[in-house]
Amino acid sequence: MSGSIFGKHFTISTFGESHGPAIGVIIDGCPSNIPLSKEDIMKNMVRRKPGNAKIATSRKEDDDVEILSGLFEGKTTGTPICLMIRNTDHRSHNYDAIKDIYRPSHADYPYSMKYGNRDYRGGGRSSARETAARVAAGSIAMRFLEEMGIHFKAYTKALGPISVSDEEMNLNEISNNLLSMPHAVKAEEAINYIGQMKTEKDSIGGVIECQITGMPVGIGEPVFDRLDAILGQAIMSINAVKAFEVGSGIASAQMKGSEYNDAFYTHTAPQYGENGHESHGFVGTHYKTTPSIHKRTNHSGGILGGLSDGSPIVLRAHFKPTPSIAQTQHTINTHLENVDIAIEGRHDPTVVARAVVVVEAMAALAIADLLLQGATSKLEQVKAAYCK
Amino acid sequence: MSGSIFGKHFTISTFGESHGPAIGVIIDGCPSNIPLSKEDIMKNMVRRKPGNAKIATSRKEDDDVEILSGLFEGKTTGTPICLMIRNTDHRSHNYDAIKDIYRPSHADYPYSMKYGNRDYRGGGRSSARETAARVAAGSIAMRFLEEMGIHFKAYTKALGPISVSDEEMNLNEISNNLLSMPHAVKAEEAINYIGQMKTEKDSIGGVIECQITGMPVGIGEPVFDRLDAILGQAIMSINAVKAFEVGSGIASAQMKGSEYNDAFYTHTAPQYGENGHESHGFVGTHYKTTPSIHKRTNHSGGILGGLSDGSPIVLRAHFKPTPSIAQTQHTINTHLENVDIAIEGRHDPTVVARAVVVVEAMAALAIADLLLQGATSKLEQVKAAYCK
Amino acid sequence: MSGSIFGKHFTISTFGESHGPAIGVIIDGCPSNIPLSKEDIMKNMVRRKPGNAKIATSRKEDDDVEILSGLFEGKTTGTPICLMIRNTDHRSHNYDAIKDIYRPSHADYPYSMKYGNRDYRGGGRSSARETAARVAAGSIAMRFLEEMGIHFKAYTKALGPISVSDEEMNLNEISNNLLSMPHAVKAEEAINYIGQMKTEKDSIGGVIECQITGMPVGIGEPVFDRLDAILGQAIMSINAVKAFEVGSGIASAQMKGSEYNDAFYTHTAPQYGENGHESHGFVGTHYKTTPSIHKRTNHSGGILGGLSDGSPIVLRAHFKPTPSIAQTQHTINTHLENVDIAIEGRHDPTVVARAVVVVEAMAALAIADLLLQGATSKLEQVKAAYCK
Amino acid sequence: MSGSIFGKHFTISTFGESHGPAIGVIIDGCPSNIPLSKEDIMKNMVRRKPGNAKIATSRKEDDDVEILSGLFEGKTTGTPICLMIRNTDHRSHNYDAIKDIYRPSHADYPYSMKYGNRDYRGGGRSSARETAARVAAGSIAMRFLEEMGIHFKAYTKALGPISVSDEEMNLNEISNNLLSMPHAVKAEEAINYIGQMKTEKDSIGGVIECQITGMPVGIGEPVFDRLDAILGQAIMSINAVKAFEVGSGIASAQMKGSEYNDAFYTHTAPQYGENGHESHGFVGTHYKTTPSIHKRTNHSGGILGGLSDGSPIVLRAHFKPTPSIAQTQHTINTHLENVDIAIEGRHDPTVVARAVVVVEAMAALAIADLLLQGATSKLEQVKAAYCK
Repeated sequence: MSGSIFGKHFTISTFGESHGPAIGVIIDGCPSNIPLSKEDIMKNMVRRKPGNAKIATSRKEDDDVEILSGLFEGKTTGTPICLMIRNTDHRSHNYDAIKDIYRPSHADYPYSMKYGNRDYRGGGRSSARETAARVAAGSIAMRFLEEMGIHFKAYTKALGPISVSDEEMNLNEISNNLLSMPHAVKAEEAINYIGQMKTEKDSIGGVIECQITGMPVGIGEPVFDRLDAILGQAIMSINAVKAFEVGSGIASAQMKGSEYNDAFYTHTAPQYGENGHESHGFVGTHYKTTPSIHKRTNHSGGILGGLSDGSPIVLRAHFKPTPSIAQTQHTINTHLENVDIAIEGRHDPTVVARAVVVVEAMAALAIADLLLQGATSKLEQVKAAYCK
Repeated sequence: MSGSIFGKHFTISTFGESHGPAIGVIIDGCPSNIPLSKEDIMKNMVRRKPGNAKIATSRKEDDDVEILSGLFEGKTTGTPICLMIRNTDHRSHNYDAIKDIYRPSHADYPYSMKYGNRDYRGGGRSSARETAARVAAGSIAMRFLEEMGIHFKAYTKALGPISVSDEEMNLNEISNNLLSMPHAVKAEEAINYIGQMKTEKDSIGGVIECQITGMPVGIGEPVFDRLDAILGQAIMSINAVKAFEVGSGIASAQMKGSEYNDAFYTHTAPQYGENGHESHGFVGTHYKTTPSIHKRTNHSGGILGGLSDGSPIVLRAHFKPTPSIAQTQHTINTHLENVDIAIEGRHDPTVVARAVVVVEAMAALAIADLLLQGATSKLEQVKAAYCK
Repeated sequence: MSGSIFGKHFTISTFGESHGPAIGVIIDGCPSNIPLSKEDIMKNMVRRKPGNAKIATSRKEDDDVEILSGLFEGKTTGTPICLMIRNTDHRSHNYDAIKDIYRPSHADYPYSMKYGNRDYRGGGRSSARETAARVAAGSIAMRFLEEMGIHFKAYTKALGPISVSDEEMNLNEISNNLLSMPHAVKAEEAINYIGQMKTEKDSIGGVIECQITGMPVGIGEPVFDRLDAILGQAIMSINAVKAFEVGSGIASAQMKGSEYNDAFYTHTAPQYGENGHESHGFVGTHYKTTPSIHKRTNHSGGILGGLSDGSPIVLRAHFKPTPSIAQTQHTINTHLENVDIAIEGRHDPTVVARAVVVVEAMAALAIADLLLQGATSKLEQVKAAYCK
Repeated sequence: MSGSIFGKHFTISTFGESHGPAIGVIIDGCPSNIPLSKEDIMKNMVRRKPGNAKIATSRKEDDDVEILSGLFEGKTTGTPICLMIRNTDHRSHNYDAIKDIYRPSHADYPYSMKYGNRDYRGGGRSSARETAARVAAGSIAMRFLEEMGIHFKAYTKALGPISVSDEEMNLNEISNNLLSMPHAVKAEEAINYIGQMKTEKDSIGGVIECQITGMPVGIGEPVFDRLDAILGQAIMSINAVKAFEVGSGIASAQMKGSEYNDAFYTHTAPQYGENGHESHGFVGTHYKTTPSIHKRTNHSGGILGGLSDGSPIVLRAHFKPTPSIAQTQHTINTHLENVDIAIEGRHDPTVVARAVVVVEAMAALAIADLLLQGATSKLEQVKAAYCK
């Protein structure tokens, strides 16, 4: 396999170039009897394409997902689910100008070297269009995990220089702005900043944070398939992500053990205080399997030794700015000559707005996979699965 | 498989608890005819255990690696290589005091819930002892990649508040201090800081950076097995790592496209300047397959669209402080009672010193795996492999 | 993953039920730059559906394969190839009669138990319709292997009691009859026998043999992924196959070593005779990489120690009779009552005719996968792949 | 990975050459809390080496298995189990005579071509010694499956021309003779036949059958990981196996549907007779999950549509004769000259006696793997695994 397959238990296999006939995904390993409708998928597909001229490209695709298999009478059957999305808005001719040019910070150059060919039409597999298949598959993972009591919430933590601190966050604001930013004023500021980038023919990076609640304890496999390692792969595999953090993340490296360590306490004996578990902007740190156990803080981001500890997972993805900018840039062409290029056309000044749901999707795919693996950790679990 | 297997082509399978009879690893998929000696492995094993009382535990293990298979007449045979290291310094009785306690920020609690048992002797598979097997396997990956012209260099970029900037770095200093820090004065400062942590019964985090040179162009697979994604999994799977960066990493999120994009230029037409490729403290950004192509900067950290672009890979791992501290901490026990604990005994105040070689090892394992996969990307490559 | 993915290097992922919207397959890992046209696929799809009233069902599907990705300007790009085939001839209403019945020797009963649901419309994933996706994917594998000089030829060795011996075989006859039988008279006999089965409302089994020529030496991986083991999985995974043989197969168990062993000899020193290598009905046993080495016999079927030895691979698949017969059978229904059933409708009296190309396809998929794996067995091969 | 890893859930990774320091295996994915002792393994290791001069080599190895990890206080911990067996009886010097010769029907030639080296000491990874690691791992699989109520019984069905028919079989006789033959008189006959082979400096093939009882319904995954396909891979991967059958196997190809189909009936309404389920020499065909459902016959060998149907699995492995014989054979050497060879030394005239337990082991490994996969087929199963 060549990298288009993710997951060993809840396995997805994606296909499609931005300018081919269609893109899509097969999900193999999804349990049967999960209620599923097309609407469960489409509500996330819509989130991936804000369609707002201020922050997004004018490329308009219906992104209508067709369910080709694996669903019968409104439930998953347990066999592979194939989801297909036709590419309806090609405009391949737009790409003629860059046909012979290796665009700076794009994948053109290494792709050409790797495969000995050049699909110049919009980046082929390296195009962000490919994330549509991830969102479609992730929607099914989220639907499954919802049945297990697990919920995902991602939002824009920062857009270039404009960031929302933990203390300022108001998760209710997320759905009120196109950037899914948990702060009304900053969201407006950020959208104006994006407008400024458009004027300057420039682009900007940003940070997306995701909280995952309702986790069972013990999800993740020791050593290489730790929950944070697989989340790391999943998130780092998203176009334009250059850094990944869990819990206190980067900040951990400057902390002392006495600051960092998350103290356990029991609910029934609250002598150590209760407000600690409200850190990171969310309320109600608790363990599903043992509701009486709390942590005062969550610097670990819900993961201990690579396994979920029952408290909310908190992760962050750092996105670089969109590489396509209309400013003139120095680069080379396929004839190895120095040339200048200005990349005109529809290009988002930031990927952040559309990537919020992609982060949720990838986190859900990683967790669905490890949750299925974890279901056979103990002999007792295996017996429970087979005995009536 | 349950997480102890890494890689699809250069595949390693590790085993062993810190207090069982032995730990080790099988490498399956290593090409034949690579010259290999025990010394190639032992020189890295030694780096993992500085044995200096100022910064490391007094636990003394010989970490003598026995090669059980896969080697014949000084060369790999192409069949599985098993490396075994006996555990010689158990002192299991030391752990009786914590037998019933869930230590804060340790894996005790989720492991117990996951497996329905408790191996209280030093953390079992979650122990950092497990990384010895990674270093052993990584040594073989590095030996293989050395034959391909690829080299690894990791160092301590920061220890708590003491960090070395790109401008200050002197890679020649790495081997002169126990922390592998690329700066003589800061290294001394950092070692003193660690001494202070010991006195305060506390611990501290840090940052390790790794540079990888000599990469062919095009290593990494599109979409999920991107080079940065697999490096992300590999590095995040190391004990205590809470964040992972490639190239400009975290900083990318605050950059504009016009700042971030790495301009290509040809060597033979140097009108765009030449000093750009000396950024990030290393000299000689160049492409193996096309020596005439350069980049002015390397914000991408050597990876474009998930594929190596031939310039040096640069990655960083952020480590949290060691969770075992001798200060009194609040926690709970297995009877779900609130208790206090002070973790006495041999515990490093920081994992950074010993983790430098682990970062190299994991990076090498990730790259060896993807390099083998990449060897069949093109029909021409497959034909070259079989025709004489 | 749940069994719909095959191969680790040339990986296919299939989807689709016989009565859903579509079936299809993604191929991930196919090298780039292989010339490929839709015709390369369709010529095999046609072989899967003889469309002859004497031996096949009257179900008529166009089986028009749409290439959704992975192809650009007439060559594979190295990225996933998705092939989709719409189901156009459902007639789901035909299945109402068996909706509540567990048909004898069908998969209804274990599928219902396994998934807790019942897709009564034609067997769902257990339907032979699923093999269309295999043939589509196998066509690409065969196209790739053709570039490597490897060729496949399968044929009906036996239909119930009518079999063609090695001595009687004439491979030129294969394309002259609907059963792909290498003997004109026996083919006619067999087709008449099938007609008789129809009259008797009965069905019949058969044997398909496949020869694979042009194999490089050394394809197959020691121990579990031996060439014969992976071919075994590939062939046994075809609907209705109950036994698998390589070379002398079943007969080997009654042979002495002195009879069985295949003597090597060099072409240039033919003192041990030359006619031995004409056994098994094919001429020209020879090694691609070392043309001067021959074997007197090929009892091993071209596989030694799980690796190809360069001589032709010979394998056989034994198919049980079609389970759907119009005779009255005793069985039970979903209410656990004893009932009688006569399965009317379009059902082939034998699967053999249509399965010939399926055997070729599965053998090709197995070999393509192992050939890619084998391309990195030696350091020299890996270097050859990267150096110019 | 290069073929030394088997299974996706209950995953084993084997290592070791016949003449290296040790052989062994890591089991990753074995559930925790399974009672396990060294004796559980050793009792099968003993079965692999009959130590009888009449039928076996005089090579004497203790095959003492050391458990290096994954076991704590008499139970599996859920983490990798490593089993190591030292090679104590090398006698490498014995192999000097064949150092430059490609032995007929041995793996010497393709191994040399594949890896570009020659481990002439007893076949390296192609040696039957490697099966010791399989038996060790298989013992743990059998111990696990025993907890699930699943049992394995293999025996010698035929030794060259001497075979035991279904009607003649008496399973109680298996443990009474060195060939594990279910018939006292035939066993004696067969042992004499082996003696005759020794005298004639020849060898002989044979057939091993295995019955597996207590299977849950629904084990196996549709399409490629069907129970019969994975059993096929598992069994075909055993040295010297040239054919594999399930249920009526080879005979199926000559049967009519009306003969072959296994009629279901309910126990409570036995009007269709009861004695049918006593076929194939075993009594008590029944379904674990639904004890009231029976089949009149078991031509399917307990597998329908690739899934277990609850009735006993019946499979057969056909072994070719041992290739090493003391008669003079024609062959070539590494200088590509025609030479003669007589392979003296300790070589079993048949592999069958020692392979009986290997067949059980491989069948158990295949089933353990698929049983774990099947434990998450339904949403209800996944919920049962996590809820208390």
